[in-house]
Amino acid sequence: MTNNQNGASFADMDEVQLDLGRCDRCGFSEVIYGEGKSAQTVLKIFRKMHELGIDGFATRIDAEKADVLAKELSANDCRFRYNSTARTFRLFTPQTDETRTHGKVAVVSAGTSDAPVAEEARETALWCGADVVFVQDVGVAGPHRLQAKLPLFQDADAVIVVAGMEGALPSVVGGYVACPVIAVPTSVGYGASFGGLSALLGMLNSCASNVTVVNIDAGFKAGYVAGLIAKRRTH
Amino acid sequence: MTNNQNGASFADMDEVQLDLGRCDRCGFSEVIYGEGKSAQTVLKIFRKMHELGIDGFATRIDAEKADVLAKELSANDCRFRYNSTARTFRLFTPQTDETRTHGKVAVVSAGTSDAPVAEEARETALWCGADVVFVQDVGVAGPHRLQAKLPLFQDADAVIVVAGMEGALPSVVGGYVACPVIAVPTSVGYGASFGGLSALLGMLNSCASNVTVVNIDAGFKAGYVAGLIAKRRTH
Amino acid sequence: MTNNQNGASFADMDEVQLDLGRCDRCGFSEVIYGEGKSAQTVLKIFRKMHELGIDGFATRIDAEKADVLAKELSANDCRFRYNSTARTFRLFTPQTDETRTHGKVAVVSAGTSDAPVAEEARETALWCGADVVFVQDVGVAGPHRLQAKLPLFQDADAVIVVAGMEGALPSVVGGYVACPVIAVPTSVGYGASFGGLSALLGMLNSCASNVTVVNIDAGFKAGYVAGLIAKRRTH
Amino acid sequence: MTNNQNGASFADMDEVQLDLGRCDRCGFSEVIYGEGKSAQTVLKIFRKMHELGIDGFATRIDAEKADVLAKELSANDCRFRYNSTARTFRLFTPQTDETRTHGKVAVVSAGTSDAPVAEEARETALWCGADVVFVQDVGVAGPHRLQAKLPLFQDADAVIVVAGMEGALPSVVGGYVACPVIAVPTSVGYGASFGGLSALLGMLNSCASNVTVVNIDAGFKAGYVAGLIAKRRTH
Amino acid sequence: MTNNQNGASFADMDEVQLDLGRCDRCGFSEVIYGEGKSAQTVLKIFRKMHELGIDGFATRIDAEKADVLAKELSANDCRFRYNSTARTFRLFTPQTDETRTHGKVAVVSAGTSDAPVAEEARETALWCGADVVFVQDVGVAGPHRLQAKLPLFQDADAVIVVAGMEGALPSVVGGYVACPVIAVPTSVGYGASFGGLSALLGMLNSCASNVTVVNIDAGFKAGYVAGLIAKRRTH
Amino acid sequence: MTNNQNGASFADMDEVQLDLGRCDRCGFSEVIYGEGKSAQTVLKIFRKMHELGIDGFATRIDAEKADVLAKELSANDCRFRYNSTARTFRLFTPQTDETRTHGKVAVVSAGTSDAPVAEEARETALWCGADVVFVQDVGVAGPHRLQAKLPLFQDADAVIVVAGMEGALPSVVGGYVACPVIAVPTSVGYGASFGGLSALLGMLNSCASNVTVVNIDAGFKAGYVAGLIAKRRTH
Amino acid sequence: MTNNQNGASFADMDEVQLDLGRCDRCGFSEVIYGEGKSAQTVLKIFRKMHELGIDGFATRIDAEKADVLAKELSANDCRFRYNSTARTFRLFTPQTDETRTHGKVAVVSAGTSDAPVAEEARETALWCGADVVFVQDVGVAGPHRLQAKLPLFQDADAVIVVAGMEGALPSVVGGYVACPVIAVPTSVGYGASFGGLSALLGMLNSCASNVTVVNIDAGFKAGYVAGLIAKRRTH
Amino acid sequence: MTNNQNGASFADMDEVQLDLGRCDRCGFSEVIYGEGKSAQTVLKIFRKMHELGIDGFATRIDAEKADVLAKELSANDCRFRYNSTARTFRLFTPQTDETRTHGKVAVVSAGTSDAPVAEEARETALWCGADVVFVQDVGVAGPHRLQAKLPLFQDADAVIVVAGMEGALPSVVGGYVACPVIAVPTSVGYGASFGGLSALLGMLNSCASNVTVVNIDAGFKAGYVAGLIAKRRTH
Repeated sequence: MTNNQNGASFADMDEVQLDLGRCDRCGFSEVIYGEGKSAQTVLKIFRKMHELGIDGFATRIDAEKADVLAKELSANDCRFRYNSTARTFRLFTPQTDETRTHGKVAVVSAGTSDAPVAEEARETALWCGADVVFVQDVGVAGPHRLQAKLPLFQDADAVIVVAGMEGALPSVVGGYVACPVIAVPTSVGYGASFGGLSALLGMLNSCASNVTVVNIDAGFKAGYVAGLIAKRRTH
Repeated sequence: MTNNQNGASFADMDEVQLDLGRCDRCGFSEVIYGEGKSAQTVLKIFRKMHELGIDGFATRIDAEKADVLAKELSANDCRFRYNSTARTFRLFTPQTDETRTHGKVAVVSAGTSDAPVAEEARETALWCGADVVFVQDVGVAGPHRLQAKLPLFQDADAVIVVAGMEGALPSVVGGYVACPVIAVPTSVGYGASFGGLSALLGMLNSCASNVTVVNIDAGFKAGYVAGLIAKRRTH
Repeated sequence: MTNNQNGASFADMDEVQLDLGRCDRCGFSEVIYGEGKSAQTVLKIFRKMHELGIDGFATRIDAEKADVLAKELSANDCRFRYNSTARTFRLFTPQTDETRTHGKVAVVSAGTSDAPVAEEARETALWCGADVVFVQDVGVAGPHRLQAKLPLFQDADAVIVVAGMEGALPSVVGGYVACPVIAVPTSVGYGASFGGLSALLGMLNSCASNVTVVNIDAGFKAGYVAGLIAKRRTH
Repeated sequence: MTNNQNGASFADMDEVQLDLGRCDRCGFSEVIYGEGKSAQTVLKIFRKMHELGIDGFATRIDAEKADVLAKELSANDCRFRYNSTARTFRLFTPQTDETRTHGKVAVVSAGTSDAPVAEEARETALWCGADVVFVQDVGVAGPHRLQAKLPLFQDADAVIVVAGMEGALPSVVGGYVACPVIAVPTSVGYGASFGGLSALLGMLNSCASNVTVVNIDAGFKAGYVAGLIAKRRTH
Repeated sequence: MTNNQNGASFADMDEVQLDLGRCDRCGFSEVIYGEGKSAQTVLKIFRKMHELGIDGFATRIDAEKADVLAKELSANDCRFRYNSTARTFRLFTPQTDETRTHGKVAVVSAGTSDAPVAEEARETALWCGADVVFVQDVGVAGPHRLQAKLPLFQDADAVIVVAGMEGALPSVVGGYVACPVIAVPTSVGYGASFGGLSALLGMLNSCASNVTVVNIDAGFKAGYVAGLIAKRRTH
Repeated sequence: MTNNQNGASFADMDEVQLDLGRCDRCGFSEVIYGEGKSAQTVLKIFRKMHELGIDGFATRIDAEKADVLAKELSANDCRFRYNSTARTFRLFTPQTDETRTHGKVAVVSAGTSDAPVAEEARETALWCGADVVFVQDVGVAGPHRLQAKLPLFQDADAVIVVAGMEGALPSVVGGYVACPVIAVPTSVGYGASFGGLSALLGMLNSCASNVTVVNIDAGFKAGYVAGLIAKRRTH
Repeated sequence: MTNNQNGASFADMDEVQLDLGRCDRCGFSEVIYGEGKSAQTVLKIFRKMHELGIDGFATRIDAEKADVLAKELSANDCRFRYNSTARTFRLFTPQTDETRTHGKVAVVSAGTSDAPVAEEARETALWCGADVVFVQDVGVAGPHRLQAKLPLFQDADAVIVVAGMEGALPSVVGGYVACPVIAVPTSVGYGASFGGLSALLGMLNSCASNVTVVNIDAGFKAGYVAGLIAKRRTH
Repeated sequence: MTNNQNGASFADMDEVQLDLGRCDRCGFSEVIYGEGKSAQTVLKIFRKMHELGIDGFATRIDAEKADVLAKELSANDCRFRYNSTARTFRLFTPQTDETRTHGKVAVVSAGTSDAPVAEEARETALWCGADVVFVQDVGVAGPHRLQAKLPLFQDADAVIVVAGMEGALPSVVGGYVACPVIAVPTSVGYGASFGGLSALLGMLNSCASNVTVVNIDAGFKAGYVAGLIAKRRTH
């Protein structure tokens, strides 16, 4: 069952109902959430996408699944990229040209342990077609480090701030920029960090007016929304 | 002490340090958070703003404080608007022209009890210069109501979804639009709504990729971020 | 000690007190909760049940225990079924006829990672004697998928909705059907899903009037109650 | 805008979108949630319903609003009933005959302070057309009281158990009956009852297989689902 | 440093300060909490106790540590008992006579998975010198099982009720006995049991007046307090 | 309906089912929980008790209800005592002799704001027939105060420790006495006391082996259990 | 009973046990916590202190109690100061000279609504004998404001940072100073601030190494510890 | 990029921005948080520090990483110390002389399982240049043990109290000393200890005025702040 009108079509693949109208309806095609899906299921979806000329993107793909995917897709001469820190797998279409971007997204992270989430955000924003600036280890306790990096991203369309133990960082960044800040709490930390809950609460209570928040460790979602905002620039 | 360069100026008014560089640095001028401030303090700030030609906006102004403000500002022939549902007070500059908007923001609310927060979001987006569409009572349990209203806002630059008992609504809306959705949980509800916490958690876990979240009852912040996004359209 | 009148009998088997009056008193016989019981204990109970002509059913049986049970019961020429996704083990009586059902139950699940709980619900409803319809991957963000499947289950006696990250799904389903909806939150998810708590809270606050909720991951309980409702149809 | 086909019609009344297809789609018409609605808004909806021949029912109507409603509706010779403990307001159609019931629902409550929620459940089940048995003050600590009352409701189609400090009661009742038990935690209690949360958790963890749960203080929802189950009996 | 007067003496053993006055001051000697102590540290304390004629008792001793202790103490011809379910290790003095008891304690548990905690309570009460009755698998959903066992423990000095998923059990037992009931929540369960928190809250809110509560999985503490109460009988 | 055998009788008084077998079954008669009961309902129960020769006791009786009770019962020449701090109302039988006590209970409280709960515990223990010692304001931060008072209660049968901000007190007291300590957290405090939750958790985690805990503000329950323990002394 | 040696003396005043050795033992005399104490009790303690030459200090004194105290103490020609924002009442000894200070404490607050807690901290530090610098409204979102004020307090012995909605502020301040920072979360805020819990958690997770935390709204405790640190400077 | 003026310099090392002005600005140099950093990254930072003559200190270094560091640094003839209980790694400069201390810090711990956190605090305070007294196993339930040790630390500049199950200990210690007490909750414990949360809450609510709190398991932060206080003594 594959029909396509008014953004209401989908492909019924038994345990998966692939939403084919997503790009028309929501701006970008459906992304595969890899957790809980077998490598074979992911492969089946990727193949369907490839067949339909969709630029495929999957998150939460561990190294073992990535190996299976890489082996199978290499055999088919597909172009792909696995980012092992981000745990993202991207399957390019023959037409994809990563040098043609629209809009600019900054990804700012507080510490080295926030890297996996920050990388997931970066890969997602790239998939969305944005130009991405990446800034690491600019925690609040050494304030001059952030100030030195500001010129790199004050003209961004959206800034993603990734932090686990530095729940304060988005508020501080928010005070310096004139675009939306998307705060991503991470589950990094110990003790009363409660798996990211403390960072999440701190970000929700931020006094900076331009800060919105996504789920703990949701690098993907931050990258997606930043990508949506960046994409509008060209309209 | 009032100097102004590089977005670093502020007016030292004893108990208040008015941030004068906010507009340059962050896109819009500082907004007055009325909670815990006396009417006299709010008035003092409004006068300073008026003197500097800033379009003033205050939130969390109860009826009693609004009366004091209205009386004093009327005496000075100032143009203002108090929205008693939103509890916002806006002090226009002589130049303000509300018919000249840039960008379009939709405010969608689940039930009648979410009105104060939805109105706060609307007034804030208006102050940001956006054109605002307002849709009420389109809860999930009667799905046809939302579908009938979709044409009104599918072309918006940002959609704000306000809901207390219908934490599901932003996910549903997110499935229909190609712009960022800003979800605002409200403290409306009873029992296990826990003052908006349940709606907040539901929104954070939303499977729709384009949904970000702000604090419970934070109509202002949603309106502000939506305003920022809408403003970029014209760039 | 085994007597049977007024639903008050039980078999004293040392560490287990098998409730023999359960079927008379509560509609179905006692079900074995496998967690924390050794394979030998489960076997002892199954044998007692078989001897008494009871259609046996055990949940939370991992693969290792299932192997022991299968080996022993095969040796006795018993008919059984182990569902490794659901982790349920059913021991049929010679008289059991699965084609004779009464009532209809639908099991609707949001994503592929909810499968174990959805399968547990299905097996339980089958054991209760219901006809079961199974619908997968119909999350809220792609609304047309659910609408396309509605004709399959709008005539059900009870609908079970299983979801971890899509706490919104039961509300949406509840708006389309005229029978009780039993919502089962699952512990699937990440970040602020808090092991299913967020889904649970979202389901409890559902605005759809026909939604009740069971414990996180309690596929068994949902299947049981749906089975009870379906069974009444024939009365 | 009032059209009616396929359960998709609704009446657009500005701040309210009255779902007219609810009865066809979901088994009963829409119920008015009174919290946060003005008496005038409730009245406007009631009049629309009356005009369309719908048996109207509103919950969370405080005494003051009820006075307004009663005065206005009396003037129109409408038949209605306000239950001040339940805070429900029912507007009968001329055709309504409360003596013609289908199915039987029991409402069992633990203590006198649970009365408002128990009464809301009772009124709702009556509005659903069920015959209702009402049992009060049968807490677990005096077990003989419950046992003495069992004959009154062991043949019910559904049993609603309402309890705030006796979170154990639904489990105990569940062990005696062969129909679904709908547990309603109440916000009654002190100390570690946490506004009903402890009762809610206890009920979710109930070992009785036939217990499902609704939101704290959600007497309405329990009555509605029990009504749905009872209604099926006659099919 | 070992002196002994007024219950204020202790043995300074570097990382351990053994409280020698505990028996005079608090009724029983100090018990060794094995978690986080090496087998050698436990052994050192046991030897000191043995030398001083104290009946030694240690909890939270895993199998590996128990092996070390058993080997060493066997070599010294000491009499001891390791209960591998309870994970308790008891080192008898030559004079200990377990047949001479004072007072009677009942340990009642809801399910088989509560066994480790129930056994810890039993061993502790035995060490306190009480006579212990042990009753298993008498959950609330099969009420006749508990009633059949009541004669075994209605004359106890204290009843310990151990339950993880049956938070209701202590309330029910409390309604049948005229002595203190000590409720022990266990961390057994799934979903919204939250590691025993739900059972704990249910027990704290019990309406039975004679129920007090100890920490989750604190079989030791329940056994100790029950032992204290039982011991008073002979005064 | 009033029959009396085997502790299973009760008086059916419509909204109240008075448990008449409680004294035989549980050691003391039923106590009236005043919250949520009208003065008339309490009066009706008191009269029934008086008629049956039961020493009546009610908790959570505010001043207004107490006035009604006092007026009515004075008119009947009944002997009673209202403790306005404890909010308890006791209705003596003609035979009650408060000077004849059995066992000794100590009530130790941390601060002056804990007085209402401490007084409720005292009145309850008195009603149970115990001799009561009362010690106030012996917080941990001034350790010499507690040590000076120890001789007053080291021979008690049970010690009740009432504390809101001093969750540490029961642990400290527990280290000095050889009888059960019943810890009562109170809802007194501010900030992170969370209505008594912090004190409750501290008490549950107490390292003193003889400490059990009751609900926040549950002075009644602590007094009752202490009374049960004290009563056993004479057996 | 009033004796004084080794810091172990106290005055037994019935419901209050005044700790007279506190100053010797702990550095400063006992402070009166006014909550839950009657004006008469506070007065009784103040008089005892005055008689003993102690510089008295009471917190949480509302306006009504302050009136009683002021009237009574004025009549006795005592010198005192009531700070109505801080709700503190200080009773000077004839010898007190506020101009002789030792050490320097800074009190930095985020917003105007934090004033009551900040003032309590200031009054306490003054009572401890410190010189106090007071800085207000220097929230993170306008970073230049804080930087402009730094010279005022970079040489302090301890900095107290008071913030409710700006949980990030202590981290930021901590990055600029070489002395201990004592963070005080306040209960100011809305939505997911949860009465100060979010600020508390943010402060506990601060990445600045020199930040410790006190209870929500505990201005007193912060002032006291800062006072202790400042006092050491002169040693 | 390495410049150094006004405490604003830092070394840009790609994934790490080493804050070189920390010592001037904040009193001590930057400490390496080892969690989530590879051994190579830690080594790179250590080498930079060594080159700049900074006394290096790293926390959360597991045994495996320590082996790599030890091997590499030994090869360079560096002097270092790895404390495997504390999991800290210190890299001395040639000039470091541990016998020259300023100020005195006490580390008091409740039980043997708190050792890792207590050791981390000790190593940190040593790195800060303080003289450290170490006291173990002085829990509240055996009060004489603490009293016997008091003379060892009553003259300290700061006392660190480390406790997981004895949340009461800081309050008790606070009542005996005239310096700041820094309380460190540990994640040791079981049941309702909730990973240290209960100890944390108890410590925040401590009635002893001189107690401040740091994050769960934050031995480092406690040692750092105590070091800061001790360092001031010599000023």
